[in-house]
This record gives sequence, structure tokens and C-alpha cells, in this order.
Amino acid sequence: MSSATKGIEEQVGARIAAGLNCAVPFNTSDRVLLGHGSGGKLSAALVRDRFLPKFDSAELAQLGDAAVVSVESDAIAISTDSFVVSPLEFPGGNIGTLAVNGTVNDVAMMGARPLWLTVGFILEEGLPLEVLDRVTASMAEAARSAGVAIVAGDTKVVERGKADGMFINTTGVGAIDSSFRPSPEKARAGDAIIVTGEIGAHGITIMAAREGLEFDADLASDSAALTPLVDALRESVGAEIRALRDPTRGGVASTLNEIAAASRVGMVLEEGAIPVPTAVAAACEMLGLDALYVANEGVCVAIVPPDLADLAVTALRARPLGRNARVIGRVVAEHPGMVVMRTSIGGTRVVDMLPGDQLPRIC
Amino acid sequence: MSSATKGIEEQVGARIAAGLNCAVPFNTSDRVLLGHGSGGKLSAALVRDRFLPKFDSAELAQLGDAAVVSVESDAIAISTDSFVVSPLEFPGGNIGTLAVNGTVNDVAMMGARPLWLTVGFILEEGLPLEVLDRVTASMAEAARSAGVAIVAGDTKVVERGKADGMFINTTGVGAIDSSFRPSPEKARAGDAIIVTGEIGAHGITIMAAREGLEFDADLASDSAALTPLVDALRESVGAEIRALRDPTRGGVASTLNEIAAASRVGMVLEEGAIPVPTAVAAACEMLGLDALYVANEGVCVAIVPPDLADLAVTALRARPLGRNARVIGRVVAEHPGMVVMRTSIGGTRVVDMLPGDQLPRIC
Repeated sequence: MSSATKGIEEQVGARIAAGLNCAVPFNTSDRVLLGHGSGGKLSAALVRDRFLPKFDSAELAQLGDAAVVSVESDAIAISTDSFVVSPLEFPGGNIGTLAVNGTVNDVAMMGARPLWLTVGFILEEGLPLEVLDRVTASMAEAARSAGVAIVAGDTKVVERGKADGMFINTTGVGAIDSSFRPSPEKARAGDAIIVTGEIGAHGITIMAAREGLEFDADLASDSAALTPLVDALRESVGAEIRALRDPTRGGVASTLNEIAAASRVGMVLEEGAIPVPTAVAAACEMLGLDALYVANEGVCVAIVPPDLADLAVTALRARPLGRNARVIGRVVAEHPGMVVMRTSIGGTRVVDMLPGDQLPRIC
Repeated sequence: MSSATKGIEEQVGARIAAGLNCAVPFNTSDRVLLGHGSGGKLSAALVRDRFLPKFDSAELAQLGDAAVVSVESDAIAISTDSFVVSPLEFPGGNIGTLAVNGTVNDVAMMGARPLWLTVGFILEEGLPLEVLDRVTASMAEAARSAGVAIVAGDTKVVERGKADGMFINTTGVGAIDSSFRPSPEKARAGDAIIVTGEIGAHGITIMAAREGLEFDADLASDSAALTPLVDALRESVGAEIRALRDPTRGGVASTLNEIAAASRVGMVLEEGAIPVPTAVAAACEMLGLDALYVANEGVCVAIVPPDLADLAVTALRARPLGRNARVIGRVVAEHPGMVVMRTSIGGTRVVDMLPGDQLPRIC
């Protein structure tokens, strides 16, 4: 052993004795620090002490530059979404619940089985670590419930005032089932338009939480993974499925306009058939909003052939999340690209796409 | 035709005549508006007029909830990274260049072939659209150069003062090559430690741009896709590859510490062998920084068996990006988990992991 090497051995011994190699003595703050995002010891401690125990993922625990997963299908669906909801926590969930369910749902809407999620945090310096802990606990629970594994992650921290608490990106990957391939271009005249549940709860809940309004004690975000409902449609409608979409930003109105445009068909909705909870209807009236444009996070719109509509509704209603499923209208050959509604008083009005920002930062 | 339907037909005709269904008359501002992120017409126009023409991707043009791609390997690598670099533009690139190359590199460091990218934008209200256009043009060019397709995207907008211009998340998916599987746990005593190029340029460039310092006209970020260098190692070292990592945040020092810890080995670096450009060395001295901790965006660290080191260096040097590749040290059995450096003056010092934030928001 050279004297230089011996010197190193002594340094190592001293450092181990001082705990410098096996513990991080810096993390005494209860708030996010800039160092948590700098790729050094504080970053490592954040991942090791706060993320890994919650997310319980073999792939994540590898701490590689990327996660490696086995693929058994010959095609995959990939979807990405960033979440900037304000406030971070609200009745029925938080930004983490949304970040998991929102991306799981986007993958599921392609007919794919969601399997893996990545998570990218952008944290504002000073964010209380207890808020981060609640959000990650919700993410872990939502991922378990949806049957997806969080396989890769990243954390950045920006200075106080350069973000708004936290933003989360999730990207989801799922296995494509070639026998069940909904697509926004597949709607045909005569098809039934189904919504799987009551609409408007998420957007109104966020607005109420943001503005400190008290509408109804029962009002809560509907954030949920839609995979059980997709399973119900796979089993009942199967290869005959036309289109599936979750009406988040822009609400049911924008989603239907997108499908109508992609399929070059018209749509006629029956106002009386659209399920709007009393609390949402009352809040919309007070705020001058239209529930058709309010964001949902646990509802999907399904377009199915006319002869399979009853079967689909029955299958959806057999699941708790789909108990209020119903047909709300029909696809028509007339006025392609346009959605209209027959109102309860016998009139007809155009249901256009949302032009701008009815409710910003809803997800 | 019922009179109600006729009324609709007339409305449709009038709307088409007014251009309301085929053009968006709102987008007269030259800055990002909140409505660009709300899922309505402005969002659709942003995607249609600014993103789709640049990214030129069949999957993206589908505008589905998720992209569907065919997989030919039985395993995939998935990696995610958020980019919050400040300033947004700097010599050698911008946040978009980094966002593409950074995630491509993370996938490549697993030995995978990067194939698909998703992009999530968080934009601050008021961001000049010309900045967004320059960033997306750079992303498109970087993606083409790296041979990856941008297959899915998302855009959110937050109010002025709630973000810092723009943040970008990219998630990358690549095909795993089972005959080339580097891993941070595979380093063994005797292995050679190679860096593929000069270090420190990215971090110093960002710091200079941020602080308005003028060090050297030639100083520019090294941001580049590392895939050609990974190909060189695949061809020369093949299945014998030990570990590959790109030393971004935390620099070469943190990367080597991570590999040493994961493999339970020590490392000894030779200070004289570490390639630091003169401009970086001068800036580091002036700023009191150590180039070993400065972020790189176009360099990788490769650990290879001793008998293949020359072959690897020769293969790397045959590529323009690897022309300065060299062995900078050895893996040793002593002091596991610790990296030390023999200095040019004959001493030895511990090269510890970066404890906190030497340079925040470097990527």
C-alpha cells in the first residue's frame, strides 16, 4: 500500500465514522430546497427517503437513467400530460391523484391497457415537504388502484416565485389490444353517444376550492381511473367500439366536437338526457357556466353502434363508476363537424367548441 | 327535414360563411395566452399552426389521447426528464435542444435505441410566441438528428408570474438491445474509466449566459445526442460493456460516485488525464468551481474492461463527438463507494458527491 493510498484509506475511515458516506445531515428543513433538484446528495436523499418507499417500484429502485420493462404486445400506446392544477389539494383528490388518473385515462382511451407511468416533478423552492408527501402518497394509491407501475421519475426545483408550488408531468405507456381499437375517426351516422357518469363535478370543485365558495358539502372531484369502464366496453362492445374519449379540459362539448370533426359527422344531443348533478347545476347557474364545458376526470364518452348501445350501458352500469351511464344523443350524417343540442323546451342550439379559457388550470 | 334541423343547417351555413368552423380568429396576439392551454379553440390552433408543421410526426398528427407505435423488441427503456434551464436560450442551444438530447441520452445510456419522445410544455402567459417557435424548431431539428419521432404532446399555460417562461418535460422510449446492457452495478476492479469528450462546457455556458459574463467567444453548450458514441461502444465493446452514464447535473464527479456506490467499488482518477477546455478551466478558476462538478450535455462516462479500453477509445475517436475520448482512471477494489483523484502535483483527494446546488437550473 503506497502512502498516498494509505492516506485515502484513513480519510475513508474518518468519513465513515463521521457518517458522511451513509447519511445526509443536510435535510433538516421541512421545505423543498433548491439543492433537492441539483442531482447531488439532497436529490438522492429526496428520492431515497421520500419517493422510493411510497412508490414501491422495482424499476424505480434501480435508479438507472431509464427504466427497462418487458413488452408482450406488438404495439404500445404512449401519452403525456402535465398537471398545473390550482389549488394543489381539493375535495376528492390532489394534483397527484389527477396526474396518475389523467394519464392512465388517456392511455385507456386508446383501448390500451395502461401498464407503466413516469413522473416528472417541478417543485417550487419552499414547498412544504408534507404537501409533497401527501401528493406522492395519493399518486402511489392511485397507481396501485389503476394497476400501473411508476417506473421512472425526475425532480427539478426552481426558485421561490418561479413556479406555483408544484407541477407534475406523467407519461403513460400501455399495451395495445388489437381487438379493441377505438378512434375519434370511427363515429358513423346512427351511432349512440354514451356518457359513463354525471358530468361537471371536477371543474366545479376546483373552481369552488380556488375561490373559497361553498356550494355543497358533497361536491368533490370525480378523479378516477377509467380502466374498469373500458373493460366493460371491451367485454360488451369489443371490436365494434367506435370512439372513446375522456372529456377533461373543455368538457363533454369540446370532446364531442373533436370526434365530430375527426369523423366528419354531426351529433345531436338531448339536453334532458345529460346527467348533471344538482350541486353542479346549481353552481353552474350561479357562476354563469355551462356544465357541458366543465372538466371531468372520471367520466368517458363512448360512441358505439346503435344495436350495441343497450348492451354497453348495461355493462357500464354494472361497475360502480358507471352506474349513471346513459345514451345522451346520436351521431347524424347532417351538419358534419357540428354538435347540436335539442333543448328541454323543444329548441335547438349549436354546442360549439370552447373558444378560450373558461376555467384555466383545472388539471 | 324538421324545422329544427333546418334551423341548424342555416346556422351551419352562416358559420361556415363566417369562417368560424375553419379558422381561428382569436390568435392575433404574438404572446402565449391562458386560452392556449385550456383545451379549446386556441389550444387546437396552437397545435395545428405551430407544433404540427414543425414536428412533422404522423403519430402526433392523429391528435389522439395517446400515440400508438409498433414495438419490435421484447423490452423497452423508458426515461423522463423535466427541463427548467434559465436562461431559455444560450450559446449552443436552448431549452428545446436540451429537452430532446437530454432524454435521448438517458435512454441511450441504458444501451437502448431511442425511438419515440413525448413533449409536455408548461408555458407562462405572456411568453413571446417567437421564443416558443425557436424552441420548437430546435426540438424538431434535434429529434431529426437523433433519429427519434415526437409522437405525443401536451401544453399547459399558467398565469404570468407562476412559471419562468417555459418548462418542458420529455419522456423517451427506446428498444432494448439485449446484447448491449450497460448498468451502473457492473463496474469491476481493474476496469477503465473513459470520458468521451471535454467536460464542463454546458454548465459554464449557462452560468455565463445567466450572469452576463463574457469568458470566451468559443464557449458554448455541448448539448448533443450521444447515440453515435453509444453505437461506437456497441460495435467495439459489445456485450462486455460495464456502465454508461451521461454526467449532467452534478457533473462527472457525481456520476462516478453513483456508479462506485451501485457497483460497490472504488475509483481512482488521474487529474492530468481529465480533459478540461482552457475556457472552462479559466472560468472555473475565476468562479471558484470544480469542472468535475459542472454539468455536461454531450459527454458520457463509459466503464469498460481493461483489455477493451484501447479498442473503445479508438472507436469513440472515430466519431466527431468522441474525438477527445480518453481513459481518465481505473476502478479499484479498495475504498468501495468512494472516488479519489491523484492530483497533478502527486497528492490524492477525495472526489465526493455534490452536496447541494452548485448550479441550479442548469437543465
